[in-house]
Amino acid sequence: MRIGPEVILLDCGEGTQRQLMRSSVSFMKISRIFVSHFHGDHFLGLPGLIQSMALNDRKEPLEIYGPTGIVELMKSLLGLGYFKPAFEVCVEELEPGERVAFERFSVTCALADHTVPCYAYAVEESQRPGKFNKARALELGIPEGPMFSKLQSGESVILPGGMVIEPSMVLGQPRKGRKLVFSGDTKPCDSVEALARDCDLLIHDATAAADNEDKANAYGHASARQSAALAAKAGARMLALVHISPRYDDAAPLLEEAKAIHPNCILPKDLDEVEVPLPDA
Amino acid sequence: MRIGPEVILLDCGEGTQRQLMRSSVSFMKISRIFVSHFHGDHFLGLPGLIQSMALNDRKEPLEIYGPTGIVELMKSLLGLGYFKPAFEVCVEELEPGERVAFERFSVTCALADHTVPCYAYAVEESQRPGKFNKARALELGIPEGPMFSKLQSGESVILPGGMVIEPSMVLGQPRKGRKLVFSGDTKPCDSVEALARDCDLLIHDATAAADNEDKANAYGHASARQSAALAAKAGARMLALVHISPRYDDAAPLLEEAKAIHPNCILPKDLDEVEVPLPDA
Repeated sequence: MRIGPEVILLDCGEGTQRQLMRSSVSFMKISRIFVSHFHGDHFLGLPGLIQSMALNDRKEPLEIYGPTGIVELMKSLLGLGYFKPAFEVCVEELEPGERVAFERFSVTCALADHTVPCYAYAVEESQRPGKFNKARALELGIPEGPMFSKLQSGESVILPGGMVIEPSMVLGQPRKGRKLVFSGDTKPCDSVEALARDCDLLIHDATAAADNEDKANAYGHASARQSAALAAKAGARMLALVHISPRYDDAAPLLEEAKAIHPNCILPKDLDEVEVPLPDA
Repeated sequence: MRIGPEVILLDCGEGTQRQLMRSSVSFMKISRIFVSHFHGDHFLGLPGLIQSMALNDRKEPLEIYGPTGIVELMKSLLGLGYFKPAFEVCVEELEPGERVAFERFSVTCALADHTVPCYAYAVEESQRPGKFNKARALELGIPEGPMFSKLQSGESVILPGGMVIEPSMVLGQPRKGRKLVFSGDTKPCDSVEALARDCDLLIHDATAAADNEDKANAYGHASARQSAALAAKAGARMLALVHISPRYDDAAPLLEEAKAIHPNCILPKDLDEVEVPLPDA
């Protein structure tokens, strides 16, 4: 996930570094990794990714967050074989409901409902600057051009006559940032629904089609239509179906089942890039 | 590596299970894995592969061999996350020079020369049946057809007149099986050369081109031309260059450098299948 110049990673299954190398994102730019749970397809890519970062002379620390047990797990993973990274790996265990805040965003976790302790994560962008009032800017005598961009990005400018223009003079109220929620592996549950309230993009477990829902639920997973129902109840603007079982050569029917309930629904393929819609777009 | 109905694996880097799924070999058929050394790109695929075997209801035991430390490493790998395979994983540490024999083949290890303890492995096929003497078979009155195949595969047959024909009556002396040697990561060294003596296929570290040989050696790797020189001295019939540095978008020059020294040399790509030539073909 790109947020401004920063890249964060939600889970890291085996082969993640290989897919990152095929993507438009540099794995060296990853600053923070959030792990949902300790099943192999969600964390076994960590040691290889960290070793590749070390081979590429990474100096910046790497932060890793996850449920209780992540500290012990990372100790084991980093102790495998002949290897010790030259950069710092900071590992932190989160409590259910805990929120960690950074410069450009915050991340809140909630317990999902899987066969082992599993977190869903909400990534919330910090406030964005207010809307630029072009008419007001022209009234103030600001020439159209680079000064507009500076003001929009929060810098003040000085007009040729010496007058100082503060961004607040031409910008509206700060606007809400975007909210993305990643469910981890889960069957439908209230805590993920609550976490996903009014989010702009919900990425949700959609392991099975409707006719295999009971089995999916028994294994701690959701069907596509259950994800869609949860997204609709939570008021999620867009839903991305993930964790489709490999038994579906063609997952189009799952997408159809979900769209019947929540029309703004996508089925991203590996390496697809999805723009999180702006809440007021 | 396929040997009759059996499949063995030489090293298991991250993503091995994914590549196996794209190959013509079923990962469920793997009976034994030989690990050269404990750098991530040679063993980090083990936990995911074993987890996938477990998810696919494997019942057969899996044998894993490697240098000292493999028992402890596998204990750590199998203890990661919420996971315990339902099948037996038998792990064995080999001494340099040790030979383990199975029904269809034996495996001998030798110390390679890398930055950490690393084994090269020689896989030697058991004896193959002798050459079928068609003229002799016809003399004995054996009708051309299914009886020929039975005799060639070591079964005796009974002629319409009641005469019993033993395979030894129509087969020549048993013939030497094939020998494949895998170098692991290594700079050129005598012990790998000795292990590779008269082998039919040598798979050897060929990290760099000649103009980068010193650096490759400093990191415990060989150049393509050094591999070729070693193969020629060892009398290896065919050489496969592997572990090419990703810095070479086009590795053709490495192949040319090697072929100048050892003409029977190949540069296999991922998923290529190579038939080990018969020694007397």
